[in-house]
Amino acid sequence: MSSSTTSCGLSADKKRVTRQIAAGGTGRAARVLIGGGAPVTVQSMCDTDTRDAKATLAQIEKLYEAGCQIIRVAVPDAGAAEALGRICAQSPLPVVADIHFDFRLALASLKAGVSKIRINPGNIGEASRVKAVADACKERNVPIRIGVNSGSVSREKLAKMPLEDAMAQSALEQLGQLEALGFQDVCLSVKAPSVKQTLAVYRRVAALTDAPLHLGVTETGTSFMGIVKSAVGIGALLCEGLGDTLRVSLTADPVEEVRAGIAILKACGLRREGLELISCPTCGRCRIRVGEIANAVERALDGVKTPVTVAVMGCAVNGPGEARAADIGLAGGDGKGVIFKKGEIVEAVSEEHMLARLLAHIKDFIKQTEVATSHG
Amino acid sequence: MSSSTTSCGLSADKKRVTRQIAAGGTGRAARVLIGGGAPVTVQSMCDTDTRDAKATLAQIEKLYEAGCQIIRVAVPDAGAAEALGRICAQSPLPVVADIHFDFRLALASLKAGVSKIRINPGNIGEASRVKAVADACKERNVPIRIGVNSGSVSREKLAKMPLEDAMAQSALEQLGQLEALGFQDVCLSVKAPSVKQTLAVYRRVAALTDAPLHLGVTETGTSFMGIVKSAVGIGALLCEGLGDTLRVSLTADPVEEVRAGIAILKACGLRREGLELISCPTCGRCRIRVGEIANAVERALDGVKTPVTVAVMGCAVNGPGEARAADIGLAGGDGKGVIFKKGEIVEAVSEEHMLARLLAHIKDFIKQTEVATSHG
Repeated sequence: MSSSTTSCGLSADKKRVTRQIAAGGTGRAARVLIGGGAPVTVQSMCDTDTRDAKATLAQIEKLYEAGCQIIRVAVPDAGAAEALGRICAQSPLPVVADIHFDFRLALASLKAGVSKIRINPGNIGEASRVKAVADACKERNVPIRIGVNSGSVSREKLAKMPLEDAMAQSALEQLGQLEALGFQDVCLSVKAPSVKQTLAVYRRVAALTDAPLHLGVTETGTSFMGIVKSAVGIGALLCEGLGDTLRVSLTADPVEEVRAGIAILKACGLRREGLELISCPTCGRCRIRVGEIANAVERALDGVKTPVTVAVMGCAVNGPGEARAADIGLAGGDGKGVIFKKGEIVEAVSEEHMLARLLAHIKDFIKQTEVATSHG
Repeated sequence: MSSSTTSCGLSADKKRVTRQIAAGGTGRAARVLIGGGAPVTVQSMCDTDTRDAKATLAQIEKLYEAGCQIIRVAVPDAGAAEALGRICAQSPLPVVADIHFDFRLALASLKAGVSKIRINPGNIGEASRVKAVADACKERNVPIRIGVNSGSVSREKLAKMPLEDAMAQSALEQLGQLEALGFQDVCLSVKAPSVKQTLAVYRRVAALTDAPLHLGVTETGTSFMGIVKSAVGIGALLCEGLGDTLRVSLTADPVEEVRAGIAILKACGLRREGLELISCPTCGRCRIRVGEIANAVERALDGVKTPVTVAVMGCAVNGPGEARAADIGLAGGDGKGVIFKKGEIVEAVSEEHMLARLLAHIKDFIKQTEVATSHG
């Protein structure tokens, strides 16, 4: 594939170069790299009461199964920090402690074994407290995310400058504060509920530091609109080469956040995993039941991780062209169709046997890929 | 709001300047402007058999109710072209005839009264046929969309250059062909199933012509992944100032395409309509039932067109900050909360009465806005 360029000459495929930080690598949790060329990871946040370690761990397991790679939990009080001991010991994912206002909760979370701290130094208080947190993180080799949200920018800054400038300045000042303490293992997030403002702030920050970026649009609302806002905001930045880890924030089950995050990475071509479905929108030219077949293929391949691109096309106009680009493709005609494999017609099929034959070819392809990979 | 700039200095708020085309304005269908500073419009395509005028009109009514502004129908044969007479006479939306291969179907559709023609001159055949279509369009003041899809680009071009170049070259050659015939009322689409390729081709074409752009990612698959791909692809272009009309292509009910299209415009800040919900993702700090309240607000405001931004925030960390930015906001605490209106606290509420009081304030706000607008 050729490299694509934006209208202003910026290479859209060129990943921004950042320093690298790492979280996890203790207990069951894999070590996850952020930035420095590592693949973009998907995060979520528990909506359980952190003090309830059992419920929190059960949710973490569900999120892990869904493909979540880093999990954050709120630490609003000492009870939550205490529960972190058990949570971190048993979590299959690196655990990030979300800290606001009270630096002692950060210190307690570190003692409990968290893999990463999210703070907003702006609400942690005086410099000595920020230093205490940075020192404790350094000692344990634990990175910090500076999470600036539009809602928590200081009134003084907002009185002097537009929100985007206030947020960028806030993030960079707080980054500077940690760097001045000799602490470099920092990533940044600068989330706003407005997609346009989110894009503007991330672009500003990206141009002024090499710290990895945690992407997100914040407080996006319930599932449908939240996924659309996140896909536009996070997707636009990823397609520009910005972003090293992400969280989709939804007022919904966190499993939906993970599902949406993975979908955004796939849409941006940053992850190939499982089914990539190319299916036409069934217009009045359509002569086969594309929707039914497409849905059946999705169901049959649920949980499959091996990448496979499948085309399900209803007619001869775009069908054969798209189907050629797929690993396996079906292009329908009147009550019949042809199955393509990597551009070659392998079989003509009747409508009755279309789905079964398509699935058989897909499963063969997956098996062959898996054999080739295990011998590769 | 300040103007935002990308990292390469392109103003993200700056709309690309294009020529303007118009469709509709006959019968029940409003005249819809495309390009030249007109608001970006949302299109869809019927999946009915066009020969069944009754079913097609019933679907068009449903799409019109959902907010669709332009509707396309497939015209695969003479029967479909004939049915267009009744469809165009009764449609509440401008009707676009989708033509492939046979220029006579374009001529028949024009006679039947369509408001716009979508052709792929590459598969219409020799120059005299393209001229016949352009002449008939000119006579009736009907614009043409040149719709290039990755699947229908010529093999000769693909053998010589990357897909993105082949698609851009194809679109510009076909535009040039119409312009050489003195026909200027053209918009372009250059859709691929890959988001990255779609972005690259639209950016290339945008830099080389002032024709309005019809945005879309094609053959995106079933609803969930299709919406994510479309939001990333269409959203990224809209946020760069590209795009004058759009269609989300889904293997699903076309009503979902319209809903997704409107959501993308709202996410990009290009449309304010009805509820803009800012709600937090309910972490372990959350002390009120944000999800329930947010969903109840959505349900209560279903169908409302007056723009209103409502914040539903679970805690004191980001809550008050975000709620201040909303027209009406609720920030929860332990079993209680405060309602904000344009930054001012208007009421402290118990958990029991929270939702009812929030809805009452929202309805008041909407009523006042409507009164102010009708007197404005």
